[in-house]
Amino acid sequence: MKNYVIGVDLGGTKINTVLADLEGNVVSQTTVPTQAKEGELPVLNRIIQTVETVIAEGKVTLNDVKAIGIGSPGPLDAKEGVIISTPNLPFKNFNLVKPLSEKFDIPVYLDNDANVAAIGEFMFGAGKGCKNMVYFTVSTGVGGGAILDGKIYRGATCNALEIGHTTILPDGPRCNCGNIGCLEALSSGTAIGKRGIEAAESNVETSLKKYDNITSYEVFVEAAAGDKVAKDIVDKALNYLGIGVSNAVVTFDPEAVIIGGGVSKAGEIVFEKVREVVNTRCFKTMAENCKILPAGLGTDAGVIGAVALAIMESEE
Amino acid sequence: MKNYVIGVDLGGTKINTVLADLEGNVVSQTTVPTQAKEGELPVLNRIIQTVETVIAEGKVTLNDVKAIGIGSPGPLDAKEGVIISTPNLPFKNFNLVKPLSEKFDIPVYLDNDANVAAIGEFMFGAGKGCKNMVYFTVSTGVGGGAILDGKIYRGATCNALEIGHTTILPDGPRCNCGNIGCLEALSSGTAIGKRGIEAAESNVETSLKKYDNITSYEVFVEAAAGDKVAKDIVDKALNYLGIGVSNAVVTFDPEAVIIGGGVSKAGEIVFEKVREVVNTRCFKTMAENCKILPAGLGTDAGVIGAVALAIMESEE
Repeated sequence: MKNYVIGVDLGGTKINTVLADLEGNVVSQTTVPTQAKEGELPVLNRIIQTVETVIAEGKVTLNDVKAIGIGSPGPLDAKEGVIISTPNLPFKNFNLVKPLSEKFDIPVYLDNDANVAAIGEFMFGAGKGCKNMVYFTVSTGVGGGAILDGKIYRGATCNALEIGHTTILPDGPRCNCGNIGCLEALSSGTAIGKRGIEAAESNVETSLKKYDNITSYEVFVEAAAGDKVAKDIVDKALNYLGIGVSNAVVTFDPEAVIIGGGVSKAGEIVFEKVREVVNTRCFKTMAENCKILPAGLGTDAGVIGAVALAIMESEE
Repeated sequence: MKNYVIGVDLGGTKINTVLADLEGNVVSQTTVPTQAKEGELPVLNRIIQTVETVIAEGKVTLNDVKAIGIGSPGPLDAKEGVIISTPNLPFKNFNLVKPLSEKFDIPVYLDNDANVAAIGEFMFGAGKGCKNMVYFTVSTGVGGGAILDGKIYRGATCNALEIGHTTILPDGPRCNCGNIGCLEALSSGTAIGKRGIEAAESNVETSLKKYDNITSYEVFVEAAAGDKVAKDIVDKALNYLGIGVSNAVVTFDPEAVIIGGGVSKAGEIVFEKVREVVNTRCFKTMAENCKILPAGLGTDAGVIGAVALAIMESEE
């Protein structure tokens, strides 16, 4: 019986790999630096080494391992197993699945960070027990993933749930993607920090002026301390996030929307506002049926998500 | 071999029922008045009669019929086969599937008009060959349906794809649902007509003033004739529709968005504008991969959709 899977969280600075059982319990774990600048093959070989390490340290054999799941920054083609390009990794149109599945002779699955986090939350986190669930990550950018009828939904070009680039304010600020008024340009940590800098550089009176460097963190701190300008920035950003979540609720009619990422760490202020907007903007039956919850997985969310990916895909 | 299905388009004024083969070709057809005011059981019996009629006229027996599909206005619970309530039909929390499947001893499937139209377009209309497709109906209201990975997506409470109630303009006009700035309040035929009436009643100079009764039709006519005010109303409404479609594109990453309903009948002016907005607002790869198309099924879309529902659901 193959009672284990391996999850690999491939990041720009480190590769975090675990051996876990089919309930997501970690049996062995290793972390190595990615050393991305060494290029494609050295990084590939380093991934292989971590897989061999967790098998050895877990005191199992390759025969006990059902599948390998890998979470990576995108854009990537999950269906083909190809990383298209990503700023902090050396892979360019590189098929990561093929050499690994040939090497170990077991199924290997690749997906982007947001989808992997969504699958992790669905299987082992705040979305446990749901059939339909939307995951938002609100951090430097805004991304997402959706579990629909119990399966990850990827879309035609593996780019589904680019919810950070839904238009929320048609004449809103410019987004990095080129569009204007995207959710990401309104509610991401970057956007909140930017509004904070703009306020500090303006003539308005705000305690934000005391900082040399303003990120969303300082804006949340000053908002909590009672600064009106910071409060207003936070309130507006969370209102737009609430609209983005509302749009996901009426579109997907899910049992839960899970919010993770740095901005969600600000805690109850985020969830209170998002729930208020959802209750105002969505049909009552849908709003009542849909829980708005913080992500349940902690710092190991990436690698546990990769474990969940391996389990979900190999169950088919 | 069961080579036929029956489709029932249940409307407030008439019941349109067909016997069709598994390629959607109509073999026999009947239409009877709904006579909704007679109440639940008489209307149920009338549905039964139409089914018996199309079997007899199609010169087949019940043994040749695989399943019955019914399209009805909502809200309804497709999973339970229950019509919850709907203004022009007598059914209130009425299980329509149970008595019909007991009577005929074959599977019976019920879904709302928008989902049925989406399935029809996917199987026999403009969405043929797609795997992921979003259907917009822009008419009195704005509704939708989505085919994801080849299956209709319903959500947790069978209310998914209420895309008419996604917020497009956070401080926009009040919608019938109670929310503000919904797509339906900006781009439906009703909204366009309302903007036309407001313009005619204002002090601005517009050829719309010559009408006693203004609907979206008159606004489109005057826009085509060159009236600046009417043109502006149409352009704004279609811009918002384009944003709604763009949001569906980045959310679902589909191969096609199909637009049907009365407003889509205005033709190329609609599709040109929507495509322009999608190309401006969506990632290039997704926009290029996604066709924006008019609905392919004509006046019989409802009943052909019901046929498609019967085929799709009985294939499982």
